Formats: sequence, C-alpha cells, structure tokens
Amino acid sequence: MLYERALERLKSKGLNLDINSFLRTFNRISSIGWVESYGSTRLALTNEHIMARRELLKELENIGAKVLFDEAGNIIAEVGSGSRAIAIGSHLDSVPGGGRFDGVFGIIAGLEILRAIVKSSLRLKHKLILVDFNNEEGSRWNPPLLGSALSVGVYTRDFVYSRLDSNGVTFGEALERSGFKGSAENNLSMNPPRFYIEPHIEQGPELYREGYDIGIPQGIVGLRVLELTFKGRQDHASSHISLRRDPVVGLSKAVLRLREYALKNQDKLRITVGYISVDPGKFNVVPALSKITVDIRSYDSQVIDEATKYTIKVAENIGGEENLSVDYRELWTIPRIVFDPEVTSIIEESCRDLGFKCKRMWSWAGHDAQNMSRITKTAMIFVPSVEGISHSKDEYTREEDLVKGLILLAEVVLRLDEI
Amino acid sequence: MLYERALERLKSKGLNLDINSFLRTFNRISSIGWVESYGSTRLALTNEHIMARRELLKELENIGAKVLFDEAGNIIAEVGSGSRAIAIGSHLDSVPGGGRFDGVFGIIAGLEILRAIVKSSLRLKHKLILVDFNNEEGSRWNPPLLGSALSVGVYTRDFVYSRLDSNGVTFGEALERSGFKGSAENNLSMNPPRFYIEPHIEQGPELYREGYDIGIPQGIVGLRVLELTFKGRQDHASSHISLRRDPVVGLSKAVLRLREYALKNQDKLRITVGYISVDPGKFNVVPALSKITVDIRSYDSQVIDEATKYTIKVAENIGGEENLSVDYRELWTIPRIVFDPEVTSIIEESCRDLGFKCKRMWSWAGHDAQNMSRITKTAMIFVPSVEGISHSKDEYTREEDLVKGLILLAEVVLRLDEI
Repeated sequence: MLYERALERLKSKGLNLDINSFLRTFNRISSIGWVESYGSTRLALTNEHIMARRELLKELENIGAKVLFDEAGNIIAEVGSGSRAIAIGSHLDSVPGGGRFDGVFGIIAGLEILRAIVKSSLRLKHKLILVDFNNEEGSRWNPPLLGSALSVGVYTRDFVYSRLDSNGVTFGEALERSGFKGSAENNLSMNPPRFYIEPHIEQGPELYREGYDIGIPQGIVGLRVLELTFKGRQDHASSHISLRRDPVVGLSKAVLRLREYALKNQDKLRITVGYISVDPGKFNVVPALSKITVDIRSYDSQVIDEATKYTIKVAENIGGEENLSVDYRELWTIPRIVFDPEVTSIIEESCRDLGFKCKRMWSWAGHDAQNMSRITKTAMIFVPSVEGISHSKDEYTREEDLVKGLILLAEVVLRLDEI
Repeated sequence: MLYERALERLKSKGLNLDINSFLRTFNRISSIGWVESYGSTRLALTNEHIMARRELLKELENIGAKVLFDEAGNIIAEVGSGSRAIAIGSHLDSVPGGGRFDGVFGIIAGLEILRAIVKSSLRLKHKLILVDFNNEEGSRWNPPLLGSALSVGVYTRDFVYSRLDSNGVTFGEALERSGFKGSAENNLSMNPPRFYIEPHIEQGPELYREGYDIGIPQGIVGLRVLELTFKGRQDHASSHISLRRDPVVGLSKAVLRLREYALKNQDKLRITVGYISVDPGKFNVVPALSKITVDIRSYDSQVIDEATKYTIKVAENIGGEENLSVDYRELWTIPRIVFDPEVTSIIEESCRDLGFKCKRMWSWAGHDAQNMSRITKTAMIFVPSVEGISHSKDEYTREEDLVKGLILLAEVVLRLDEI
C-alpha cells in the first residue's frame, strides 16, 4: 500500500508513526459530544468541549509534554528542546451538530507526531508544539477564531473576554470556570514559533471529486457577513394579500436571487443565508420585520465587494417591489490571507516525494492559520472530504486519507526542521 | 351630524349614550401596554393584560354590575334583572405589537351600553351581560379562543389548563396566580345567554375602501394551519453552492409560490406564513432544516381543502427540485361557522333605520363569536379599519366609526330586548 512505503521512508529517518494509535485516539476523542442522529456538539467551553480537552491533556501528560495555557485558554504543548519551534495546531470545539473530523483531525494528527517523536527518541533541532485553539468555530461566542486572535494580538483581552454567548455568559466568565485560563506571557505573540502548520479536512468537494490525495491551500478566502433587515407592516392573517407589506416575501426573494447569483459565480464565490428571524413570528400574524445574515466569501476581495453591492442592490430592489423598508449593515469583514510560499513549496515537494497527488487550492473556510500567519510562516494541509460535506453529521473522511495527511505532516515537520 | 340624529333616536327610547365617556374610557384602557414604536402588547394574563382587566373591573364596580369569573378566567358582568340575557363580548388581550382597537373596542362599547342602561335607569326585559374573554389571541397559549372554548365546552378544562406558553408556564398556573380563576358553574354553557353580539373592527379593508359605515358578517371563515418542514443537509458556508441541499431555499420557494397562489385567489382565500425557523441558525452554516407555518383561511371549506392540497404539492415539488425531504402536518382546523340569520337581519334593519350604510360580508379572522354560536344566537358588528391594517401598531379606526358601532350596538340591544 501507498502509505506503507511512506511509513518506511519515515522510519528510515528515525520516526516510527503508529497508525493504529492515531486512529484509535481520533475515534475516541471525536466521539465526545457525538449524537448519532445529530452530529458533534462541542461548543467552546461547554462540558463536552472540556471533556475532550481533558482527554487531550491526559494524552499529552502520557508523552511527557510540557503544557501551558495562554490568556485565551489555548492549550500549548511542547516536546523537544530546540530554541525555536515548529507548531501544529487546530481545535476541538465544534458547531452544533457538526462533523466528526473538523478540528479533531488536526489535533490528533499533531498529537501523534509529538508522540512518535518522543517514542522514537528523535532529536530535532526545533521544539515541536501542538496548539489546541479555543472557540475556533464562533458558535458560542462570535466572531470565530477568538482564541488565536487573542493569542496573536488581533483582538484585545477586554474585547475577547466580554463577548457574550446566547445565554449572556461572557467568554471571560466561562474561561475562568473552565480551568483553562492561563497567562498573557504564554500568548503565541510573546514567543512566536518559527513555522505553523494546520492540517484539516477540505470543507469542499474538490479533492474528493477530482481524485487528489492532498490539497495545499494558497491562503484563506476573504469573508464578509452582512445583515439584511426587511421592515414591512405587521398585519393580521385575514388581511388582503395584495395590500400586505410582507417581510417574509422580502427575505424569500432575497434568498433566491442571492442563490442564483452565487450559483452563477461559484468558481469564485460562496453566499450563504444561515440565520433567519421574523418578528413577532406568530402563525396568524404577517410579521413586522425579518432579518437574515448573508455570508459572502471569495479569494478575490473585488468579488466580495461586487457581491456586497449586488446584495444591497437586490435588497433595495425587493424593498421597492414589495414596499418594504430595507436596512443593511456589515457585521464583519475578514480579509483574504496568503500563506507562506516557502512552506507551501515544502509541502508540495513532500507530496511529490511521498507519491501523494496534490493540488494547490484555496481554503473557503476560515481557520486559526489566518491569525497565525500574522506572527509566523504558516501553511495548511488539506485531506479530501467525501462530497465536501462539512459542519454536518454527514461529514466524512476516509481513514486512508486521514493517514496520508498524518504521514505528510510528519514528513513536512522533518523537512522544516532541517531548514 | 349623522350620529346626533341617532343619539336623539336612542334618547327617545330612554337611553342616553355618553360618547365622551366611551371615547375617554377607550383611550385610557387601550393605552395599557402600548409602546409608540411597537404597538400594544397585552398577552393573556401578563401584567399588562391583568392591569387592563383590573381597570375594567373598576368601571364595572362603579356602575354596580354583578361580576362573575368562570373556569377559564373569563369576566362575566351583569346588569338588569331579566331571566334571560343579551350578551356583548370581546377581549382585552393582544398579540405582541398589536393594534389599539382589536378587542378593546368591543369591550368598551359593551361597557358603555351597560353604563348607559344603568344611568338611564332603563328597564329591559333581558339582563345585559358583558363578557371579557381570556386568551382570545392565542399569542401566549395556542390555540386561540381558549377562554370562550372552555366556557362553552369546546375544549375540556384539562386540555385548556395544560397548555404551555413559550416559557413552559401552563394556562392553569398563570390563571391561578392572576386572581381571575372562577368556577365551572359560571361557564356560559351552564346558563347560555339568549343572544350574543360581538362588535369588532374589520380586519380587512373592504368597508373602508368601499365607503361603508358598518359590516355585518354572515359568519367566520374556516381556518387550517399547516406546518411544513424542509430537511436538507447541514453544511459549511464554504461548501459548493450547486451541491448544497439548502432548506432555506426550500422555504423561500414555498413562501413565494404560496403568495402567488393566494394573490390569484384572494377573493376567496388568504394564506400567511407568519412563523419561520431554521436550525441551527448560524451565519456560517447551511441549516439542516427549516420550518414554516401556513395559515389558510376561506369561507368555503372546499377552497381550504384545495389550498391544502396545493401547499403540499408545492412543498413536494420543491423537495424534488432542491433534493430536500419534506414533512407536513396539520396543526389544527377550525371549520367555518355561520351566524344567526335572525340577529343579522335585525342588525341590518337597525342600520337602515339609523341611516348607516352597511354591507353583508365574512369575517376572515377568528372570534369568540364562533364558540358562542354553539350555545346561543350569535352575530357580529364590524366597523371600518383604515386600509384594514390589523394586529399592527398602524391599525386605526376613526372615532366617528367607533361611535357609529357603539350606537348601532345600543340600537340592536334595544331591538333584541323586544323580541
């Protein structure tokens, strides 16, 4: 088999990777918070997330890693003794009803590399670091990537600690209670690693459909989130249809027109309406207003700007057609980032030498790598996801692809160590 | 002025109606729970509703009415001494952000008739009863018309008392705490009035647009509420647009197709989507499922059946087009009811004699009258609503129309008393 040759190759460099240990640990930790009919729910700093992190800490203890917590509650585990570090990172939190692979794959792959290096008694020039970032998904506290953003200095501690979840609990309060709160001196910005690699499943179908083993993102697409509000006139379900000013009709037209636009431009653009609310939301009342979020992403900031303009134009046109007043606001914009070309080239060369068919591509999803790229040479490794299903219980990556990702990560770490 | 002649006419029959007292009381009580930018919120048995009812009780005490509470917490106030009764009724609860006139007009008009009869020392053959029904709107506890339904025996006490509001509070618990809980022997079914009249604003624009003073409903249209569920596949906002199975697209298509169908058939049909939910409802997640309610109403049960079939067909077609699975269920059906022809004729004759231009029509909204029609000879009186806006802060009925409604009510009571 393909990866037996690759494992031999790593062995010849002194590294014994234990595939069974990796899969066993992955299956165990990815099952925490899993409900068969619904998917994974490990929202940041909830019991399920804390349980998964404690399991990770046990594993790290078993291999004798030095464990630090930073100001954001990120777990930073070190092995080895070099003065500079190669870091691997991802996250254990999930969206509600998310997939089994998102985040967990990267953490367990990183853990297995640390374990293999310790067990193989391999002396590297660099320390090896595993980072488990806190609140990556943003499902409990918005915006996403809070943990890495605080650790690298994108947001202030006050901003991050004061974020509220839907029950009015601040990030700061939950962090205090969780036992993961560490000190600012451990923030990654205080002592940046030399390299940062984030392995992840592709959140799209390209690799799977086109038969690639590995994807090498050139960077992460930019993201803008808009909120559209349609205000109509609250009315009784008995009111004349033709006299209504119905904000439900407004949002429905917007969803369909934006979908059509996104379909036409899907090679360079994604648009998602994931949140809808109507007020007052009673079966027998034509609502007074409706709100939707519009998530726009592209690797080209001009495409995002055009889609933003189109969205606003669509909303205004609908306002005119349906006699609704229309408000829009930008909730946030995260600019595109480009990964380090030296590290992506090393990943590409490693794939070639390992016989893994790889493709340069873009990451359409945000990752902590975008924050890490501000303080260190950063890249990502993608493995195929069947049909690209993501943030869903149906998310699935074949074991052989997980293993290829793990092997590639080991190979890349060894090569970066030699630079 | 038109109503000065009419007032003289009532005076000649021994009844002095005090228009200023009526308008003053109406303005005072309708302002409880009113927020200028939002409208009236007096959900059943909330503080605002209880406050409005207490004001009503004070007024009833001032005129020496005998006040009873029944098992549903309906307020039943009597004046006079006949062995049989003429009842006037409506309600003081509102939807969230409702209008100022809905319910309150009928209660205060009835109150003013009781007051005028007491003050004029007019001896009628019948007792005169005012009923303030509890939880008419159904905005706190579903289904609507709970108070009248229990009082006339449509629902059992167990069913009504166990209804839950959105905070998990039962109707029974809230009723107990409110102080309005009375006994089953006061239920209207135990001692039905001989006639029941419910004055209300039209919840539609016909009278206003066509220049009528008064509407005389022949009955209340039938109502069916369906719930549609579109199940797709939860996915990441980065997923390929053309591979998505997006339940938001499903609901949007359903809203627009049902609106088109309702527009084409609006002479005999209304369709409303007032409730929407998506799960999980996060900006960056294609939802797993969406739910909407479809409120279908018509005076013709065949039209409701056809619209039901059409709704299900639309949902199934969309399921096929968008690769969604579709569920639907009937939440409830309330059949059309027809009012008493004798009483509606008396209302029509009264209008003719008072010089009020009137129109026979249908009520597109449900009213406690539909429950009362099971136990007594029932009719309604509609006054025009500007543009028919209803369940909305913009709901508006001109003072002169409120006054015409009041005068007609007095005239009808006096005529019914003579039968």
